[in-house]
Amino acid sequence: MLEIDANRLLADLADLGEIGRTSEGGVSRPALSPADLAARDWFRQQVSEAGLEFRSDAAGNVSAVLPASTNTAATLLTGSHLDTVPNGGRFDGALGVLAGLEVLRTIQEAGLELPIHLEAISFTDEEGALVSLLGSRALSGQLDLEALEHPRGGQEALEAGCSRAGLRATSLAEASRPPGSVHGFVELHIEQGTRLEEGGARIGIVTSIVGIRSFWLHFGGEAAHAGTTPLARRADALWGATEFVQRAQRLVEGRFAPGVFNCGRLAVEPGAFNIVPAKVRLSLELRHGSVDELDEMERELLALGATVAQNSSLRFESVRADRTDPMPMDGEVQTAIASASDRLGHAHRRMVSFAGHDAGPLGIIAPTGMIFVPSVGGVSHHPQERTRPEDVAAGANVLLHTLLELANGPSSN
Amino acid sequence: MLEIDANRLLADLADLGEIGRTSEGGVSRPALSPADLAARDWFRQQVSEAGLEFRSDAAGNVSAVLPASTNTAATLLTGSHLDTVPNGGRFDGALGVLAGLEVLRTIQEAGLELPIHLEAISFTDEEGALVSLLGSRALSGQLDLEALEHPRGGQEALEAGCSRAGLRATSLAEASRPPGSVHGFVELHIEQGTRLEEGGARIGIVTSIVGIRSFWLHFGGEAAHAGTTPLARRADALWGATEFVQRAQRLVEGRFAPGVFNCGRLAVEPGAFNIVPAKVRLSLELRHGSVDELDEMERELLALGATVAQNSSLRFESVRADRTDPMPMDGEVQTAIASASDRLGHAHRRMVSFAGHDAGPLGIIAPTGMIFVPSVGGVSHHPQERTRPEDVAAGANVLLHTLLELANGPSSN
Repeated sequence: MLEIDANRLLADLADLGEIGRTSEGGVSRPALSPADLAARDWFRQQVSEAGLEFRSDAAGNVSAVLPASTNTAATLLTGSHLDTVPNGGRFDGALGVLAGLEVLRTIQEAGLELPIHLEAISFTDEEGALVSLLGSRALSGQLDLEALEHPRGGQEALEAGCSRAGLRATSLAEASRPPGSVHGFVELHIEQGTRLEEGGARIGIVTSIVGIRSFWLHFGGEAAHAGTTPLARRADALWGATEFVQRAQRLVEGRFAPGVFNCGRLAVEPGAFNIVPAKVRLSLELRHGSVDELDEMERELLALGATVAQNSSLRFESVRADRTDPMPMDGEVQTAIASASDRLGHAHRRMVSFAGHDAGPLGIIAPTGMIFVPSVGGVSHHPQERTRPEDVAAGANVLLHTLLELANGPSSN
Repeated sequence: MLEIDANRLLADLADLGEIGRTSEGGVSRPALSPADLAARDWFRQQVSEAGLEFRSDAAGNVSAVLPASTNTAATLLTGSHLDTVPNGGRFDGALGVLAGLEVLRTIQEAGLELPIHLEAISFTDEEGALVSLLGSRALSGQLDLEALEHPRGGQEALEAGCSRAGLRATSLAEASRPPGSVHGFVELHIEQGTRLEEGGARIGIVTSIVGIRSFWLHFGGEAAHAGTTPLARRADALWGATEFVQRAQRLVEGRFAPGVFNCGRLAVEPGAFNIVPAKVRLSLELRHGSVDELDEMERELLALGATVAQNSSLRFESVRADRTDPMPMDGEVQTAIASASDRLGHAHRRMVSFAGHDAGPLGIIAPTGMIFVPSVGGVSHHPQERTRPEDVAAGANVLLHTLLELANGPSSN
């Protein structure tokens, strides 16, 4: 049976991990940062050395293409993202892009002719330094105005990133592909959790991807002298924000498990030892696999913010920063992944993804599936993120045979 | 009876309020910032136009001097500070410096010859953007190594400020005055509270100044993926820090009133929507009029931080940022202020100052007192900070007659 070159793939992962490497051994490649652009340049070079076509679009997505014999064929996509969170890991995103490239090289070297184009893509800003899932939303025609007007990273950062990358913020949505041109999408990714490890399986078959909602919460009080203003007279914005975080934790744990939330950013104004905080800006992110539960979480958490603020004589405002609904994965793609895993002898299990992925937006326009491989200890978004070499190879081989089956139809492989 | 020129003083206050003016109508002149240096230049020009001597020292303190007839005389100091908190008010500090200058002009114009030098000084960084009470601590020989090694504003900001102002961080302590050279110090300042307003008095006579302790608290957890890491498995540094703020509020209100605390700065790392916070750095400031209570507050709050961290599997560390012990004001100076107020017909009351002031360090080396005038609504460290013109004039006239009495002795005035 056809196999990818595991050593070549592992060497690529190691090389890419040097770009944006941090002193703690992690990687910092926020979307459209100089490090992210360097990673794209490196990718372009690999594509060119492999004799594949390089392609880039108006959203900054970059791809390797192995063309079909007929130009009018549809395209089967695979891939993930080269950007990372600050001081994140070397596998999150990178694995899917490089395994996609390796699959294309393997098929090309084997001299296989496929009836459709095969494309290994890296989507812009999966992690949302600027706009969450920017590239995959643009490609699938879902980059809405709201996301571009209130980007998570701020308007200025979005403009700066686009300018560095030679893109135009107003043209990002032009990356959308014509209806019917995408035959399917399969993404290989690390699990970023411990369910595969704990369940003794090497391959995860994703059944659906969680929905994610994110907001900026603004608590507004009154700046005051931190000595002469008695505690009972203060309208301290930080007291409100800290009460919110404490109560949100209890609410989500008690009422919405396995749904999760995160407050990952917090800024205090004016920000002095001796001034009572006048303003706090707090980020809030919610995740749940069910859209109804997600709606209810959003309602209850925003109501909690308003209640906490009112009880403390603070002003409260919430601004939506991003929104992705839960996305079920395609049944036939799941079957193809299971069949490839069986033929390769890898134990597999089906699971919900609690991380958002580019496969979410792609699922709206084409049959889409995801393959997970284990993360050692479940560690991710962290310098110590790691996937064993044998799991990297297994995932890439399952990807290869899944793509061959989807390209050729189940019988011909 | 001799009187200051209230219109001239009010015009000076208005002019100075334009330097570092913010869009909200407040003033931002953090110590040794370009705006603070512009305020010093403006002050130097006023001193020169008044025909007084200008003086500056190794800590960046700047003064107007009205010399006595004999060079060997001691110096009676008055003054306050030209620096402000970010987006603070136009009276905090500025009033004491400009009233001091106005008193010197008044005495000079009246042709009075005093047996001692009279000096109106602006102390560097009363507000502690870099090192709290930097100038007054340096002048009174109390600028300790700890404060310079762990400055509130960071080592880099201190170096940058010194360099802008033409000072050397290693030479700041050389501003200390020889023992016996300072005859006394009287500071006019706004109350920054509502006790004068509520008590129907125009003049506050400060009996003592609160002690202030400040710290950086560090909560350390583990960065993790905000989707795939179940809430129960997280070591979220922000959860620890927010629990600390909530419990500190209850502890101080319940156990240490009228003592107060403030958490005015908070920074989260790595600081992304979708990463569980790994580190939080939180500022903590405590104030109490009793040194025993202050010691106990410090012990209990640092123990609270350690307990909260331990319960949440976080690391905890505290680093002292600053320390000022409570300082009782001189009895004879208090009597001189009361006597001047009585003669001018202004109702007065005695009170503890819950704000730290340059009079604190000065109290260690010379008989020291403070005059408070009302703040409208108690508002301070805020653009709306205001003191009525008639209260400005009353305070400056009480300052004038207090200084005359201290300079000449009680009988000669």
